[in-house]
Amino acid sequence: MVRENEIRAGEERVEPPAADAAGLVFIGRIHTPWTSRMETPRQGRLDGPVCRIEIFPLWVKALQGLEAYESIEVLYWLHLSRRDLVLQSPKSDGAARGTFSLRSPVRPNPIGTSMVRLVGVAGNIVSVRGLDCLDGTPLLDLKPDRCAFTPLAADRETG
Amino acid sequence: MVRENEIRAGEERVEPPAADAAGLVFIGRIHTPWTSRMETPRQGRLDGPVCRIEIFPLWVKALQGLEAYESIEVLYWLHLSRRDLVLQSPKSDGAARGTFSLRSPVRPNPIGTSMVRLVGVAGNIVSVRGLDCLDGTPLLDLKPDRCAFTPLAADRETG
Repeated sequence: MVRENEIRAGEERVEPPAADAAGLVFIGRIHTPWTSRMETPRQGRLDGPVCRIEIFPLWVKALQGLEAYESIEVLYWLHLSRRDLVLQSPKSDGAARGTFSLRSPVRPNPIGTSMVRLVGVAGNIVSVRGLDCLDGTPLLDLKPDRCAFTPLAADRETG
Repeated sequence: MVRENEIRAGEERVEPPAADAAGLVFIGRIHTPWTSRMETPRQGRLDGPVCRIEIFPLWVKALQGLEAYESIEVLYWLHLSRRDLVLQSPKSDGAARGTFSLRSPVRPNPIGTSMVRLVGVAGNIVSVRGLDCLDGTPLLDLKPDRCAFTPLAADRETG
């Protein structure tokens, strides 16, 4: 069952500290076919629908060179998620597990990470397959897939 | 050359907005052998040294079940990185590339992601191989590797 905001049997919450250790900027917005959490898939599929990642104007130059990669990593902010559960019951059956052993959106820092297939870059729009987030999700970052990427600078330098 | 804080030939900065769209909590601290950015490897290796991820007391229960995974994803805050470059020159040779086409720590939201090998969990310490961050790096999240993880709840539910 998709969580609205309830706490289920077996779950445990903590009183979280103020989320002020560091701050984020939203650098774009993700457009997907899924407008309710009921419909959103739990994991993206590389043969799923094409989704459009809109980059806000300030950051568009940072896309230069991204088109060379087939596979990219997307980081986004799960803006509807509660952040205070340490034990969660994904099946609502009372069997609870630690938050760090789940990929649930409910976490102390609700940052989603997906590895997606790049379809194309046009202006400020990056088209990809493989996302699983809600339409309108705020974007935090794009990076080349760590497996495909070779650092340009030497591994270690002394200068 | 490791960046101290300079801007290199060919690079371009923007005036970033206030980083107040969302806030983070630091949930732990990462202990590695690397105490200066000069020594820190650019990419972690799964045969690299064992590093210790310390979880702060509030969140220790959230580790339950993590020991079942061989491979986990670690998210951390690159606290020494500047955040305002859209074009970067990793080799300091004037050849600049877009930030999103690099895995450089310099990014609008300096969040590092690594896929690491789990060595063990004992109390509030998670031991792993494959990290590439500085000693003392603040921890944001731990998740099972998306490839190894099967969602426990059904893919889509209507209830």
